[in-house]
Amino acid sequence: MGNIRSDIAWSTADRIVVRGKNFTDEILGKLNLGDFAWLQLTGTMPTPQQSTVFNAIIVALVEHGMTPSVIVARMTYSCAPEALQSAVAAGLCGLGNNVVGSMEGAARYLTEALPKDAPADTELESLAVQIVARFRKDKTPIPGLGHVVHTQLDPRTTRLFTIAEENGFSGRYVRLLQLVHAEAQRATGKQMPINATGVIGALSCELGFPWKITRGFGVMARAIGLVGHLLEESTQPISREVWSRTEHESSSHLRPGAAAS
Amino acid sequence: MGNIRSDIAWSTADRIVVRGKNFTDEILGKLNLGDFAWLQLTGTMPTPQQSTVFNAIIVALVEHGMTPSVIVARMTYSCAPEALQSAVAAGLCGLGNNVVGSMEGAARYLTEALPKDAPADTELESLAVQIVARFRKDKTPIPGLGHVVHTQLDPRTTRLFTIAEENGFSGRYVRLLQLVHAEAQRATGKQMPINATGVIGALSCELGFPWKITRGFGVMARAIGLVGHLLEESTQPISREVWSRTEHESSSHLRPGAAAS
Amino acid sequence: MGNIRSDIAWSTADRIVVRGKNFTDEILGKLNLGDFAWLQLTGTMPTPQQSTVFNAIIVALVEHGMTPSVIVARMTYSCAPEALQSAVAAGLCGLGNNVVGSMEGAARYLTEALPKDAPADTELESLAVQIVARFRKDKTPIPGLGHVVHTQLDPRTTRLFTIAEENGFSGRYVRLLQLVHAEAQRATGKQMPINATGVIGALSCELGFPWKITRGFGVMARAIGLVGHLLEESTQPISREVWSRTEHESSSHLRPGAAAS
Amino acid sequence: MGNIRSDIAWSTADRIVVRGKNFTDEILGKLNLGDFAWLQLTGTMPTPQQSTVFNAIIVALVEHGMTPSVIVARMTYSCAPEALQSAVAAGLCGLGNNVVGSMEGAARYLTEALPKDAPADTELESLAVQIVARFRKDKTPIPGLGHVVHTQLDPRTTRLFTIAEENGFSGRYVRLLQLVHAEAQRATGKQMPINATGVIGALSCELGFPWKITRGFGVMARAIGLVGHLLEESTQPISREVWSRTEHESSSHLRPGAAAS
Repeated sequence: MGNIRSDIAWSTADRIVVRGKNFTDEILGKLNLGDFAWLQLTGTMPTPQQSTVFNAIIVALVEHGMTPSVIVARMTYSCAPEALQSAVAAGLCGLGNNVVGSMEGAARYLTEALPKDAPADTELESLAVQIVARFRKDKTPIPGLGHVVHTQLDPRTTRLFTIAEENGFSGRYVRLLQLVHAEAQRATGKQMPINATGVIGALSCELGFPWKITRGFGVMARAIGLVGHLLEESTQPISREVWSRTEHESSSHLRPGAAAS
Repeated sequence: MGNIRSDIAWSTADRIVVRGKNFTDEILGKLNLGDFAWLQLTGTMPTPQQSTVFNAIIVALVEHGMTPSVIVARMTYSCAPEALQSAVAAGLCGLGNNVVGSMEGAARYLTEALPKDAPADTELESLAVQIVARFRKDKTPIPGLGHVVHTQLDPRTTRLFTIAEENGFSGRYVRLLQLVHAEAQRATGKQMPINATGVIGALSCELGFPWKITRGFGVMARAIGLVGHLLEESTQPISREVWSRTEHESSSHLRPGAAAS
Repeated sequence: MGNIRSDIAWSTADRIVVRGKNFTDEILGKLNLGDFAWLQLTGTMPTPQQSTVFNAIIVALVEHGMTPSVIVARMTYSCAPEALQSAVAAGLCGLGNNVVGSMEGAARYLTEALPKDAPADTELESLAVQIVARFRKDKTPIPGLGHVVHTQLDPRTTRLFTIAEENGFSGRYVRLLQLVHAEAQRATGKQMPINATGVIGALSCELGFPWKITRGFGVMARAIGLVGHLLEESTQPISREVWSRTEHESSSHLRPGAAAS
Repeated sequence: MGNIRSDIAWSTADRIVVRGKNFTDEILGKLNLGDFAWLQLTGTMPTPQQSTVFNAIIVALVEHGMTPSVIVARMTYSCAPEALQSAVAAGLCGLGNNVVGSMEGAARYLTEALPKDAPADTELESLAVQIVARFRKDKTPIPGLGHVVHTQLDPRTTRLFTIAEENGFSGRYVRLLQLVHAEAQRATGKQMPINATGVIGALSCELGFPWKITRGFGVMARAIGLVGHLLEESTQPISREVWSRTEHESSSHLRPGAAAS
């Protein structure tokens, strides 16, 4: 028989231990939520610098306006008010390849091009050229670049780069992302900003996380954002209106009397 | 036509505003995740006291060991590794009446017995007697009391009460919960602790949240916990073993050669 | 240690047995999907009459137009095309109290008023009066009555009653539902139809199902309906348009230049 | 503004039309669930042959024993009994790449190698060689081949091939799958059966479905299977036992007194 083993937590009648710390004495009332999230994920306490950068990237992912994920959660809640948890769950199901995927995608190409143990003298410029060439060959967009609304400059990008710089996390992955950006603009002849998901992908690498978990940052953060939207939906609902407009319009061409179309 | 309106956030090409604050200047790199969650939910910045109490109650809900929710998320991830978001979603679907419901239940009976605008001289003792009598009449357990593992004392309870006290949030709801506890022990003749979900229900009332959103605290928190478990599952999996043992045992009585049972 | 035991299915290298039947020889290619669903749920083969009634009630629940559940599934699919299964899951999360709940609610009050083993001479009229009185006292709508679109007559109701009649399943539960309907109209002085969920609740009782599983009929059926909508969404999408309209309108009052409101 | 348009269904006060058919007159009580699923997905009525093959492939996917998806649904239901719909949803979230993915994978390589409009004289043998070569080069398993339990022969495979043959659907996709199977055995020197997901992938192509929807067949089918398991869980639960064993074992090495490991 194989093992069933987890190293995260255990408890007895009078003690709860998480990641080796006594939960009530060392964590509760002492760690803020972001710092405890770091401990939960990494098994270590964050340094003040790790804390600042990690809290910033998760905070950056909490609230992105009236996204599909939010609309989904609100509509689900209006139909199943007995199960707020499932409304959040439904919303999170939409955090897929076309949403948080770009964060994961950026972290992935940065990590694959530049493994943690890559020699110190690795030439980043040529890696950037290779990365851009590969995406162009596959005719797929480069994750982390471009934005529908923030077409010139994603305002979060500059701020996140500054936070990383101030805390000693503006290292090779940040540099490589910037080189990919420059090369992409050169190769395509088009202006496009580095977007927030790009920076977060790079900072996730700087902090030492594997690329596969990056998507989870969006999930953790957005769960908070969705609860905020459900609280608003409970007093200021939009679901019924979105439903009735969509339903009416979607089948109007089929109803008797509809103009042929 | 009705309104489709949300007051949480908006953005333009060069600006992102959440709850009336410039996101990049006032929030990013300045607020920790728990404080931003407060802002997202309430629309106001937390005081230092609110911050401490709110962060503590969310932190208390992140990690509860190898719960069904965790097992569900891990098994889902092992089957659908392409969609980490759905593994978390599946796990959250289990945060229902038999789990986070007790937190909601406690907040509910406290709020219903003692509305925010209840007169200052409301007699809490008689409310407690009524609350206990009602649950006993319905033969349902009183939410917030008793614990399977922490049978004598839930270690988180004492600590959370202290944190509330130190920050000026040990008010009427905390007092009413304690009276319900005393009355329940008197009426049943049994020892049982106030558990963490009970205190969190009371503190949620102290902080001014409607009882219906309390379940959302568990959802937000556990999303973080689940991502931690998925990170562990990706390198130290338990899913296949839980599956194969459960499958084998569940149908062993049906297989040819099984002893009649 | 407790038992981990299921009586539904087992398999060996060369044999698959479901509900005691050899799956390949007795089921595959011989049972239609509805009949196999009956076998899966009840452990017995349906009679032709059970087959007709059961297939009809599940078929009646597959497609209800552009419901919130459908909108949710479509939007989720557009964001996470890598995981069609999660788009369906998100849609199903909305089949809650305000949707399939009325089917469950009808089955519940019918069963609770008239248990399977109720004496043959139970007076249904007085049960109906009691049921209506209780809902009116609680000021909650009576599940199974009334419809937003089909205000006079739900066309499915008449047909389902006929199918039940023709197959020998128009028994005491159908009669009790009709009496509840008559009494509700008398007591309120308002015209309202028996809706499809009401009949399905009653027929579910006639077929011998426990009320708690009735909601599952909607879930099974709608999963099929949602896959149909996702197939359409893949070539004729509505998600992006619903999103962009909703997002734009929801925050327009907050943007610079918006008229004060 | 873009279009919001669906061609599946519409209704008025006295009429419900699905896929152009009067729902009450032409569908209800006349179509079994599998045939209506075909209509919902394709917009056409199935021929008797299509009906037999389509019902068989969906039926084949309903019940696969105590799979992770089933365990997940059961555990979720035990925690959130208020929302059976979410328990099914949680279970469906696990129907991902490592489960129904092989069905989709088979349909995909068959379709990509042999588009619908491929010339009648397309040489299937060389396509099979190319398909096998590509998977071997990528060092990924060939979807549709091999099975953990049915190591020599998947009993469903033979039966499904026969059903296809008897109904005129044993065409080029079935032939190509068989050639892939032969070539894979030749190239690897290993015996492995064509499994049920492989045949279903091929039959899905024979029936004219796009490969992207194949995964949806598993989702529709398994929703039925899961409701059956939840019905059993409600009277013969396994969740608490799976939970307590898993929890106990997973952290036993961390508890005080555990042998160093």
